Amino acid sequence: MPNFETEKKQYFVGIEGGGTKFNCIIANHPDDVFETTRIPTTDPDETLDHIITFIKNFQNEFQIKAIGLGTFGPLDINKKSPNYGKISKTTKPGWSNFDILGKLKDKLPFPIALDTDVNAAALGEHLWGAGQNLESLVYLTIGTGIGGGVIINGKPIHGLLHPEMGHLLIPLSPQSDSPQGICPYHNNCLEGIASGPAIESIWGQSPEDLPEDHPAWILEAEYLAKGLMNIILAISPQKIILGGGVMKKPGLLELIRENILALLNDYVQHSSITNSIDTYILPPALGDFSGRYGAVALASEIYLAQGV
Amino acid sequence: MPNFETEKKQYFVGIEGGGTKFNCIIANHPDDVFETTRIPTTDPDETLDHIITFIKNFQNEFQIKAIGLGTFGPLDINKKSPNYGKISKTTKPGWSNFDILGKLKDKLPFPIALDTDVNAAALGEHLWGAGQNLESLVYLTIGTGIGGGVIINGKPIHGLLHPEMGHLLIPLSPQSDSPQGICPYHNNCLEGIASGPAIESIWGQSPEDLPEDHPAWILEAEYLAKGLMNIILAISPQKIILGGGVMKKPGLLELIRENILALLNDYVQHSSITNSIDTYILPPALGDFSGRYGAVALASEIYLAQGV
Repeated sequence: MPNFETEKKQYFVGIEGGGTKFNCIIANHPDDVFETTRIPTTDPDETLDHIITFIKNFQNEFQIKAIGLGTFGPLDINKKSPNYGKISKTTKPGWSNFDILGKLKDKLPFPIALDTDVNAAALGEHLWGAGQNLESLVYLTIGTGIGGGVIINGKPIHGLLHPEMGHLLIPLSPQSDSPQGICPYHNNCLEGIASGPAIESIWGQSPEDLPEDHPAWILEAEYLAKGLMNIILAISPQKIILGGGVMKKPGLLELIRENILALLNDYVQHSSITNSIDTYILPPALGDFSGRYGAVALASEIYLAQGV
Repeated sequence: MPNFETEKKQYFVGIEGGGTKFNCIIANHPDDVFETTRIPTTDPDETLDHIITFIKNFQNEFQIKAIGLGTFGPLDINKKSPNYGKISKTTKPGWSNFDILGKLKDKLPFPIALDTDVNAAALGEHLWGAGQNLESLVYLTIGTGIGGGVIINGKPIHGLLHPEMGHLLIPLSPQSDSPQGICPYHNNCLEGIASGPAIESIWGQSPEDLPEDHPAWILEAEYLAKGLMNIILAISPQKIILGGGVMKKPGLLELIRENILALLNDYVQHSSITNSIDTYILPPALGDFSGRYGAVALASEIYLAQGV
């Protein structure tokens, strides 16, 4: 009797966990996608149950090779830690200490790779997007929050925990009469003065409603450029990719590039910056899919590593 | 006739190029040192001639396996660049565009490995000092200038050029009535407000002459902690090692640790920071020799890589 089971097509599952929605994709590659969905981020059990149901609904149609999860944090991604796979302390109601990896493992008995949402997005862009063939890049997202992922020698960095670029300290603008930002933890941190909610708190309007010629964007470009300058000086990435909802405002990217050149003031002497800033700081080539494809890449890496 | 030539002991040469002095060591390991010397940094040709003479004087007594050079920058360390091995634009008179690697190669026909002084120091501490068995660490020196080296997965990072942590932007202290720093390139950069010369410009006295209970050290600890916070948030290193002349002031390291805990405000939830900051931010275990031994390590790596 033929084994039809083994003839089903095999796929990876990529899950990108964000503060407002979870994206889930069944794919092997950006050119080989079986299905994708979007689930609102509510309480952790409900959100994960929806994802697990989505995946199981298709289980008769394909075989899962492995799962990659790139999620918002702070997140314990140290495999030797007793809290590996848990969300750490977060302002997001109900999510502090949630064992997101454990919940998935319990219901989906496949290899599961874990990283931050932004490390996954950086990996996606590194493999299939704007950062191909580079040793190093930074992916920064500017939306409800601000976060950054880092690739060095082709791999996401973790170190002690993982980068938390949203909380970089930034000098306030001399023109600003705003307070020191909305972050409950830090004065003058990037997320507190330049995330979507920070823009709204300064100007009293949501970023989508602020016209392109509003002075809000002058200040926003200054703050993001100061954050990016610190990233350039600390890490020296070969490219920086800027994603997230706030970056969709037309003209903002160009303003940021101008501000960075002015701030660096010719100090970092490299043609990638001095002559071609337009290809040094750029939008994600994978659009809104960097994180999802990056999660597929995480799945693919654990699958290869396990030799299954 | 026996070949006495091959019976001479073999050594690496490590050269650490600093703004005020060049240190040169003939060694295989911190426990196997043949000779060491210190040469004042004057004009580039004179400085290098002294080093070359020092090495050649011993040539009858040992064989050179390879040379490692860790030097101040900015420095082009991209092997594919036409300017590989040259100092870039610097405020140091005579050194801009000096081909430091070319000059050494011309006179010393051995494999020569090149990196920044601070990457070399980070590597030295990683192999033989306070950062053994770690995947990642940062070495920051605070002296005449401020600079940082980074080890990720056991190797110094370069990226586009190399990190330039001295120029990280830092919010000025609300208590400060000082101007925006002495850096000719940037307002509010770490080197401009917290290097030795910056301390002297703010307080009118050299750092060595300022007593331990002078308010200068409160401000200095605040600024260095702000810079270190940005380094922690951007790179997430497993340890940070603080070297350089300014760090020799008794009590400063302890003040910095206190400031970092207050600034992070419990946001980075890792026991290395929350419970054991004293072993997370610490002085170099190799003392003033981190850079020199690191240069020996660079030599050893190129020697092994070349299979000689």
